[in-house]
Amino acid sequence: MQSVTIGRYLWQRLRQLNVKYVFGVPGDFNLQLLEQLDEVDGIEFVGTCNELNAAYAADGYARTNGIAALLTTYGVGDLSALCGVAGSLAEHIPVVMISGVPPMFAIRNRLRIHHTMAEGDFDNVRNAVRQFTLTEARLTPSNASQEIDRALRYCWQERCPVYLQIPSNLSYLEIAQASSPLTRQYASYDKRQHQLIIGKLTGRLCQAKHPLLLVDMDAERSQMAIQLQQLCDRYQIPYASFSTGKAILDESSPLWLGYYPGQTDDTLNQYLAKADFILATAPCYIEGSSMVATQDLPVEETIYLRGFDITFEQQTFEGICAPVLLNQLLEQSIECQFDIPKQPPQTRSSTSFEGPLQQSKLWEQLRHYFKAGDLILGENGSANIALQTVPFPKDCHYLSQPIWGSIGYTLPALLGSMMAAPNKRHWLFIGDGSLQMTVQELSNILQKGLKPIIVMLNNSGYTIERYIMGKSATYNDIPQWDYHLLLKAFAPDIEFTYQNVTTHQQLSEVLDALDETKASFIELKLSAMDAPERLKQFGPSVALFDYGPRGPQNK
Amino acid sequence: MQSVTIGRYLWQRLRQLNVKYVFGVPGDFNLQLLEQLDEVDGIEFVGTCNELNAAYAADGYARTNGIAALLTTYGVGDLSALCGVAGSLAEHIPVVMISGVPPMFAIRNRLRIHHTMAEGDFDNVRNAVRQFTLTEARLTPSNASQEIDRALRYCWQERCPVYLQIPSNLSYLEIAQASSPLTRQYASYDKRQHQLIIGKLTGRLCQAKHPLLLVDMDAERSQMAIQLQQLCDRYQIPYASFSTGKAILDESSPLWLGYYPGQTDDTLNQYLAKADFILATAPCYIEGSSMVATQDLPVEETIYLRGFDITFEQQTFEGICAPVLLNQLLEQSIECQFDIPKQPPQTRSSTSFEGPLQQSKLWEQLRHYFKAGDLILGENGSANIALQTVPFPKDCHYLSQPIWGSIGYTLPALLGSMMAAPNKRHWLFIGDGSLQMTVQELSNILQKGLKPIIVMLNNSGYTIERYIMGKSATYNDIPQWDYHLLLKAFAPDIEFTYQNVTTHQQLSEVLDALDETKASFIELKLSAMDAPERLKQFGPSVALFDYGPRGPQNK
Ligand SMILES: Cc1ncc(C[n+]2csc(CCOP(=O)(O)OP(=O)(O)O)c2C)c(N)n1
Ligand SMILES: Cc1ncc(C[n+]2csc(CCOP(=O)(O)OP(=O)(O)O)c2C)c(N)n1
Repeated sequence: MQSVTIGRYLWQRLRQLNVKYVFGVPGDFNLQLLEQLDEVDGIEFVGTCNELNAAYAADGYARTNGIAALLTTYGVGDLSALCGVAGSLAEHIPVVMISGVPPMFAIRNRLRIHHTMAEGDFDNVRNAVRQFTLTEARLTPSNASQEIDRALRYCWQERCPVYLQIPSNLSYLEIAQASSPLTRQYASYDKRQHQLIIGKLTGRLCQAKHPLLLVDMDAERSQMAIQLQQLCDRYQIPYASFSTGKAILDESSPLWLGYYPGQTDDTLNQYLAKADFILATAPCYIEGSSMVATQDLPVEETIYLRGFDITFEQQTFEGICAPVLLNQLLEQSIECQFDIPKQPPQTRSSTSFEGPLQQSKLWEQLRHYFKAGDLILGENGSANIALQTVPFPKDCHYLSQPIWGSIGYTLPALLGSMMAAPNKRHWLFIGDGSLQMTVQELSNILQKGLKPIIVMLNNSGYTIERYIMGKSATYNDIPQWDYHLLLKAFAPDIEFTYQNVTTHQQLSEVLDALDETKASFIELKLSAMDAPERLKQFGPSVALFDYGPRGPQNK
Repeated sequence: MQSVTIGRYLWQRLRQLNVKYVFGVPGDFNLQLLEQLDEVDGIEFVGTCNELNAAYAADGYARTNGIAALLTTYGVGDLSALCGVAGSLAEHIPVVMISGVPPMFAIRNRLRIHHTMAEGDFDNVRNAVRQFTLTEARLTPSNASQEIDRALRYCWQERCPVYLQIPSNLSYLEIAQASSPLTRQYASYDKRQHQLIIGKLTGRLCQAKHPLLLVDMDAERSQMAIQLQQLCDRYQIPYASFSTGKAILDESSPLWLGYYPGQTDDTLNQYLAKADFILATAPCYIEGSSMVATQDLPVEETIYLRGFDITFEQQTFEGICAPVLLNQLLEQSIECQFDIPKQPPQTRSSTSFEGPLQQSKLWEQLRHYFKAGDLILGENGSANIALQTVPFPKDCHYLSQPIWGSIGYTLPALLGSMMAAPNKRHWLFIGDGSLQMTVQELSNILQKGLKPIIVMLNNSGYTIERYIMGKSATYNDIPQWDYHLLLKAFAPDIEFTYQNVTTHQQLSEVLDALDETKASFIELKLSAMDAPERLKQFGPSVALFDYGPRGPQNK
């Protein structure tokens, strides 16, 4: 039996799951793991400017690559990264968080060590991280192979972050080499349950006249997106998406009816009124993004499909694995035919893109520049609120963080996603308030030669907040920067294009002449109270929800 | 009885403890608290670029002001700040962390809310923060006044962070106004215990021939520094400090014997060998900073004084309040007289400050520019390691984070400390690796018109780590920036001076001509493997401690 060091074992297992980059920051308790990373082929370290940025980058990498790894040093690194890891849990993104921790004898003897409270407690960090990971383990030579495999499988199958602590003096000790590689395997399921459910689903579908698929973010996270698209295409089933489930299915198809809940009496709502089979994928219904409640969907007609269970008429069946179930469903040949509702002809908008930039026209103008296959990131703030209802061309992906909503997330996530798919064209839309949080990561993005199109909305501060409270309060202001100089400072030797845009005409010119051989940074000057219509409605309703009727008035 | 809203009550209580600035980042769950902050006189909000920076700034403010407040928004804000708050706990810095959290009905009904896992769990954030705060509470109208007062007193008296969650829909509800202001009161103590201990201390001191005070960081944190200095001055007691207790007592006094453990057979060690009364203030003995173990101090002769207890010959007496105890001790008139050991005459070093910059000369050169009353911040890395043994002039303060050691801390801490004492001259010494972590806070420092002297050690990456592991490994490299442009970008309208220094001569010229009417940024170009002597020794010993004999070799 061959043996291998614990550190190498870990990196090899991650490589087998197709992790090619590990994001993180070095520290004395993880340097030995970095040395071991250098020894394993096909997997590399990507140092970021700080650990929060590393966690966001890992999350972005996981979304595009399928799974990611994050490396921190004990305490200071773990806690700095925690907000990002919690985001991965909230959004169901598989990230393996690996922490190099003090040597085992220091833990056992409760030594007063740096990066701790110097009181001998080595559980507090673990207790904190445990709140935001699906499972965790402190490795020892006796448990290492089993815990690593368990955590990685969990991470992959349940689409959630997991946490491994590796005492620094153990990672060079040897354990048995694994007998077979780890693979991206689906979770186990109960076969009879699947048969039963396929029977139910095909039965219901055959009887249906007006079926509808309603898709939310979990469809992608649970790896059902491809199958759902195939299902809709094959049987011509119309579909719609929650704004939080944006761009998971093809928004250029005639089957696509728009965003749920949609406008009163639009095609979607008319169709919904007569729908007799609604397959909904794990809708989240959070007040923050959709302001929708489940009770709006008819109980009898709606089937809720999640990663590991499905609910018909309020009865839930466990023991399934949704992507496998859908594959099996696709192997059936179901006899059915449906009418697709006619959509009003897409009147190419007659908006004239002239005059000073305004969000009411901005997004309509921008969307014509998106191409099939683009990957588009929308930061929380006016960018995400606007993009959530801008239809994308075929095969575009949308990357945002609607549930956790930690601003600054998308810039490092851009780094991560581009490392996973450098040949995909990436757009990032981000406000000045969000950009400041994690701005230094621009240096890694540019210095690695990545070529994103970054569109920055400079509206002098936190516009989304101004619509909630403090319209003209100074607490919603932020320091104004010279972004052109900033880019030069962060990447002195890199060629990129920077454009400062104040009118719609200028924007057309800039986008028409986009040079994709370089990174582009387009700064849009917007007035502080200019916002998408959805945000103008969203603000006051959030204020009422949050502060109640005796709360402050927004002056 | 007058009534007041919960939010106002909180801000008023903090103002009574002399908190004039609240550091943080707005978010929808705390905007109502920001509105209320505007209504209270003499206390203002200082927005930082992100929450980690806010936590570090609050810590810096607390160190210079005595106590601080930090305002975050639920989940995303709390967790982003957590590493900074944990640092405050590790280092015993009183920071009141206030989080605006979702409305009470959302918590009670477990609604699926943004900034949560959208699964109805509102305890996970609290559980995580609880690990790193002394006490915490979720406010309701029924407990608010009592919990606010309790938390604030704890924070002040025990010198540790505390955590308050305020549901967003409650802060405008009214509670009874407090009948008397909150004051910076010492903790209670047992009077007889104090008498007993004063008896023991004076008795022991009278009998002593060679007393020594040995001071560590807790002396300052427990507010005993002034009294200890007075005690030493009054009775001419020689003193020394741990490197982690640097600059708490006057390092320019003839009573000062240097840093413990010192060099073999120096004045300190010679004196220690005959010392018959050693008063040591809560030494931390962490491997990371001092590599010293308690067992080196003689058991019989050593008295350990902490904030709330004191140990004589391994017997511990509880129920004391150290600063009060010392005040009472100072009221005694003790008959005693001691010989102060003669120190070898300070041979003004004959180093010639010429040639390319080298750390072996750098700190000796710099120290002659420090003036009485300066506040000096030393970031972890070569800066702190070097500064820990550079004696300072009278009344200088040193601000560093030796236990928690989270790099990037000092830049926002500089903002906080300068907000507390804008008229004190502040120096910051920081490496390029640390600066990148929190660099955007430069914009607030400059745009607020603060005038620090920032000395940045540009040695192309993580030099301290290179001495531990990965001498020439790429994981210890960082992206190189143009720092001059960076400053211009972060503060387009502010005048400051930037200097790029490569030789000792240049450094003298720059420091001789320092213009204190502007902020200064001095970039020192150092080679990657240039380091203070202490670091060269420290690196390999950390590697052995962390990785053990089978660990990697540093090539
Ligand atoms: C880490 C974190 N801190 C604070 C918040 C609260 N917050 C939500 S949106 C927002 C402002 C975003 O401003 P900007 O990026 O400029 O977008 P705009 O709405 O102005 O386009 C803030 C501060 C948050 N979501 N996450
Ligand atoms: C938040 C955090 N991440 C990682 C570390 C590990 N660490 C300790 S010192 C150091 C390098 C500091 O480099 P620099 O500031 O350039 O100082 P130098 O030693 O080069 O002077 C690192 C990465 C840490 N202490 N804190």
